Amino acid sequence: ADAAATEAARARQAQLTKPAGALGDLEALGIRLAGVFGTARPHPQGVAVLVAAGDHGVAADGVSAYPAEVTPAMVANFLAETPAGPGGAAVNALARTVGAQVYVMDAGVNAALPDHPALVRAARQRGTANLRVGAAMTRADAEALVLAGAALARRAIRSGADLLVPGEMGIGNTTPAAAMTARLLNLDALQVTGRGTGVDDERLSHKVTVIREALARTAVTDPLDVLAEFGGFEIAAMLGMMLQAAALRRVVILDGFVEGSAALVGVALAPHLRDFLFPAGECAEIGHAAQLAHLELKPMFRLGLRLGEGSGGVLAAPLLLSAAAALREMRTFAEAGIPT
Amino acid sequence: ADAAATEAARARQAQLTKPAGALGDLEALGIRLAGVFGTARPHPQGVAVLVAAGDHGVAADGVSAYPAEVTPAMVANFLAETPAGPGGAAVNALARTVGAQVYVMDAGVNAALPDHPALVRAARQRGTANLRVGAAMTRADAEALVLAGAALARRAIRSGADLLVPGEMGIGNTTPAAAMTARLLNLDALQVTGRGTGVDDERLSHKVTVIREALARTAVTDPLDVLAEFGGFEIAAMLGMMLQAAALRRVVILDGFVEGSAALVGVALAPHLRDFLFPAGECAEIGHAAQLAHLELKPMFRLGLRLGEGSGGVLAAPLLLSAAAALREMRTFAEAGIPT
Repeated sequence: ADAAATEAARARQAQLTKPAGALGDLEALGIRLAGVFGTARPHPQGVAVLVAAGDHGVAADGVSAYPAEVTPAMVANFLAETPAGPGGAAVNALARTVGAQVYVMDAGVNAALPDHPALVRAARQRGTANLRVGAAMTRADAEALVLAGAALARRAIRSGADLLVPGEMGIGNTTPAAAMTARLLNLDALQVTGRGTGVDDERLSHKVTVIREALARTAVTDPLDVLAEFGGFEIAAMLGMMLQAAALRRVVILDGFVEGSAALVGVALAPHLRDFLFPAGECAEIGHAAQLAHLELKPMFRLGLRLGEGSGGVLAAPLLLSAAAALREMRTFAEAGIPT
Repeated sequence: ADAAATEAARARQAQLTKPAGALGDLEALGIRLAGVFGTARPHPQGVAVLVAAGDHGVAADGVSAYPAEVTPAMVANFLAETPAGPGGAAVNALARTVGAQVYVMDAGVNAALPDHPALVRAARQRGTANLRVGAAMTRADAEALVLAGAALARRAIRSGADLLVPGEMGIGNTTPAAAMTARLLNLDALQVTGRGTGVDDERLSHKVTVIREALARTAVTDPLDVLAEFGGFEIAAMLGMMLQAAALRRVVILDGFVEGSAALVGVALAPHLRDFLFPAGECAEIGHAAQLAHLELKPMFRLGLRLGEGSGGVLAAPLLLSAAAALREMRTFAEAGIPT
């Protein structure tokens, strides 16, 4: 982040027509946005949500409440024509409300997805291998998906996006996210494994066992190795989106737990990525709090979201635009002639 | 609220293409919005923030960190021409970001405010009397301001507002808000008195003493008597806005502690008002949590705001519009042909 702009924003914030600190967390968010955009009066505009979809070999182990067939069905839902406009999923409805552009990427769905002009095709495999028994993907495939995510981020930025929300869909993907988080933060599977879309106690315990077995299989700690061994194609793509957005000095709104696993790889590779990450809400997955503590970042709300798709990130966009607007547009006490 | 629409929304929510409960608190918010608008697919649109300003006799006792002259200066700030558009205060910048209309009312400012086409004149007095030593206002003045607030709410609704944010400006007004809250919830002043715009420990302790003295002065419990004895003109106006918005089946976004004191009077007079209240954030004033507990309502975020002006309410508007959009626009599992 731009240190001079950050300092200038801090000084400006102190002169605006409000009691010091009265805008609460919005003030610190505004100052961070100044650092991202390199000006004390940041004016971010377009919002884009980039939803990457992928399937997971480990889903065959019964780690999810839903069958893997839901992944391609939800991709179709993201693209469907509806009376309200394109897309019948939550992320579509939320994106229409806040004026965000939705991009949908096949990062490795286990189905022959029908052609659609709005579908970005980046799949190299139809789903990962089962991470419990071997590497989820090759390093080459992982790196290809990172580059595909980066390319999509560039496209969104070229189309005007200043705030990017990497999002995901992939039945079973809280399992790779938990495995990656456990390894990268050196935690036990139990500390980072949650109910995902809603597994019961028995399946949750099974999910922990599966993740422990995977972690016991290999001792890799190199971030990209962790991604390839335990990750998912949509997670690799989101990593690429994050790195590219930061490199082009754009905001990455960090949605949930799966997104957080990509962010952990990202900050391990490039610590300055952190300056560009803005967590949306604290999601209901237990491992999410551990990720945010590691990133030393505070979420904007606690609405108990656990949907994925980038949905929480889209909800957070107006808060960030507002934080920037307050910093940019408010008058100072001097400008307003108000005694202090 | 409309019980049939509420039930229909609950049934619809369960069929939407997401895991049950995955949209967290947005789901309950969507269902409440269905109750307000009488349809399982609510489509609220316009947002208006109605900022009432008033001065307070008790400010002479030194209960605020700012001099009373700041009230008229901030009214001028709400109306000022700036390079970004009308208004140089936080609420203006936030309202521009979310597309909310701003209305500004002189409910009883202690100054000769210059004419301005956008200023709604409703003042009957130039500030209240000092509530420590006597009634802040007459019942007749209180009732007149309630009616003026209602009239402004009708005007905003006629101009297309479905979501109304009563907001306030008035140096010293967390003192009347605390006194009203203490009396209406039968709490000690200490439990509901906070730092407002930022008083230090000594002044906070003095503020508690002032409020205790006021409470000891009279035993009134009738809600409108509590308003007249301890309240403020802008609080009376916000009460009128809330009652009118609810009567016309519109949403009231409840911003902070001062707004909450008006809401407590409102639900005491008309318990169904509660169905139309949507608290924005939990504000930093300690009495706010007691108000929300009494209302049995949960705030949407915890950003530590303590500015007033309706600023938090404006920030919450996109979340409510999003909750409605998800309920209204998402496809059902059956529509999307997804196995459940």
